[in-house]
Amino acid sequence: MAVYTEVTDEALADFLLGYDIGTMVAFRGIAEGVENSNFSLRTSTGDFILTLYEKRVDPHDLPWFLGLMEHLAQHGLVCPQPVRGRDGAALRQLSGKHAAITTFLPGVWPRRVRQGHCSPVGDALAKLHVAGAGYAPTRANALGPGSWMPLLDRCRARGDEVQAGLIRELDTALASILAGWPAQLPVGHIHADLFPDNVFFLNDELSGVIDFYFAATDLLDYDIAVCLNAWCFEADFSFNVTKSRALLRAYQTVRRLSAAEQAALPVLCQGAAIRFLLTRLYDWLNTPAGALVTRKDPMEYLRRLRFHLTATDARAYGL
Amino acid sequence: MAVYTEVTDEALADFLLGYDIGTMVAFRGIAEGVENSNFSLRTSTGDFILTLYEKRVDPHDLPWFLGLMEHLAQHGLVCPQPVRGRDGAALRQLSGKHAAITTFLPGVWPRRVRQGHCSPVGDALAKLHVAGAGYAPTRANALGPGSWMPLLDRCRARGDEVQAGLIRELDTALASILAGWPAQLPVGHIHADLFPDNVFFLNDELSGVIDFYFAATDLLDYDIAVCLNAWCFEADFSFNVTKSRALLRAYQTVRRLSAAEQAALPVLCQGAAIRFLLTRLYDWLNTPAGALVTRKDPMEYLRRLRFHLTATDARAYGL
Repeated sequence: MAVYTEVTDEALADFLLGYDIGTMVAFRGIAEGVENSNFSLRTSTGDFILTLYEKRVDPHDLPWFLGLMEHLAQHGLVCPQPVRGRDGAALRQLSGKHAAITTFLPGVWPRRVRQGHCSPVGDALAKLHVAGAGYAPTRANALGPGSWMPLLDRCRARGDEVQAGLIRELDTALASILAGWPAQLPVGHIHADLFPDNVFFLNDELSGVIDFYFAATDLLDYDIAVCLNAWCFEADFSFNVTKSRALLRAYQTVRRLSAAEQAALPVLCQGAAIRFLLTRLYDWLNTPAGALVTRKDPMEYLRRLRFHLTATDARAYGL
Repeated sequence: MAVYTEVTDEALADFLLGYDIGTMVAFRGIAEGVENSNFSLRTSTGDFILTLYEKRVDPHDLPWFLGLMEHLAQHGLVCPQPVRGRDGAALRQLSGKHAAITTFLPGVWPRRVRQGHCSPVGDALAKLHVAGAGYAPTRANALGPGSWMPLLDRCRARGDEVQAGLIRELDTALASILAGWPAQLPVGHIHADLFPDNVFFLNDELSGVIDFYFAATDLLDYDIAVCLNAWCFEADFSFNVTKSRALLRAYQTVRRLSAAEQAALPVLCQGAAIRFLLTRLYDWLNTPAGALVTRKDPMEYLRRLRFHLTATDARAYGL
């Protein structure tokens, strides 16, 4: 369920008066996504996505997100481009929420990742990193390494309800990850959530990258680590090094990894796994039983984390 | 949330090979609707809706529903038209479910009903009734008057948890409704669920009627009674006779009501109110707390029912 806020047809018609994109033709809530309310909007001039920002997004970050999307779109990455109103503003108000209209991207996200998806993802991620370099404003990564111990502490009292011994295992892993966290790697704007449901494909070609609402300024290689977690594990949580190699090779065709960057892959992947494990664990423990959002199983990331803890160097990822 | 079944992009691409409507361009789950899984589907030739039928729809009824929609569309009602595959079949299988593709209708359903919506609804309902006459197959109304006492019985043990004295009030009302239920009024195919979320408008004109999965063969005037319940109450549950008069006048421009039909309006409206009250009450008592479906408040229909119980004749509805 991704429609938390209802928009009346009158309110929408009024809202569209602020834009130069024609009048409403069709308007449907979109089921995908869990953070914001999304609607597919057709007007007399074309197709768009209307997003109402819900409480998990800090309104102060919205201009940064929209600015990044606009910058990336102008620099060759296919991603939703914010549509500016007649007054030049992309960020507006609708039904009591911050709201923005972005361009519609064709394509379908892959429900099952095939090897053929991984090269295009690596290529797009590298292009995103390169294109992002020209966007001057920065945003600290609220879910970066500094957030993981506080998150673990908030799960400490009840975490073992999910699995006996879990908190002790995470304490040990996190201490090792934070101790080994690389300090000197290249920093830039990262997507930070480039999972399959945020990448569209059309006729086996990547047709767009969406959902920049976790984007931040952080280690570029951490973004690669998120993708290795998101795209290269099979349903049984075995790691598919062929997919990983394809993703990394395509990435390096655009942006070459230094020896230090390659050497950091295991700890970065451990960090990415524990980041999704911890947010899922927190949500698991704190989502009311009657909530409309489907809770995601945190234990899937414990399986990934354990794999990454066995990796001693970049060869584990096919380099 | 109206996506209960996930469809992989590969399965969808294979599925489309059975049709002559081009290849997949975009595919998004639709948040509206609670009975089936609905997706907006764009192909290289146009826009469509893909529906996967979930467990609340009896598969044996599907050919009847699709046949009715096709018949009505061919006879001038703007409604989704089932798209037949290369083999001539409209009803197919996808991801383990019965599935059909229908044409896409532009328009937006009115979140707040205005008086101006009611004439077009009355007009469309009458046209649906007239056009339906040429569709020979029939379907008994599984939620008609014969189902109400069994439904009430299934709510009996716990109904008063919702409101003290509720079951006694419903027993009294239902006995009176069933005793006064008209036997000799015209029978035909009815939509039976023509609520605002099933009627699209575009530039203040009705642009289509959707969701025929409660349609059945029953008293035509009962369908009017459903609409009077659905369109003519204000948010405070007061009855708006101006809206009702507009709806009925427009209806009668197409299909005239006899004196007997007019006289039956109060009991038909009582019946329609108790039908939605009872299914909502049953769902309220039987929806698990963690379910993805939002429960609808049954008490809204007790307020409507009480109004209709005060109506002595058709003048209460503006005739």
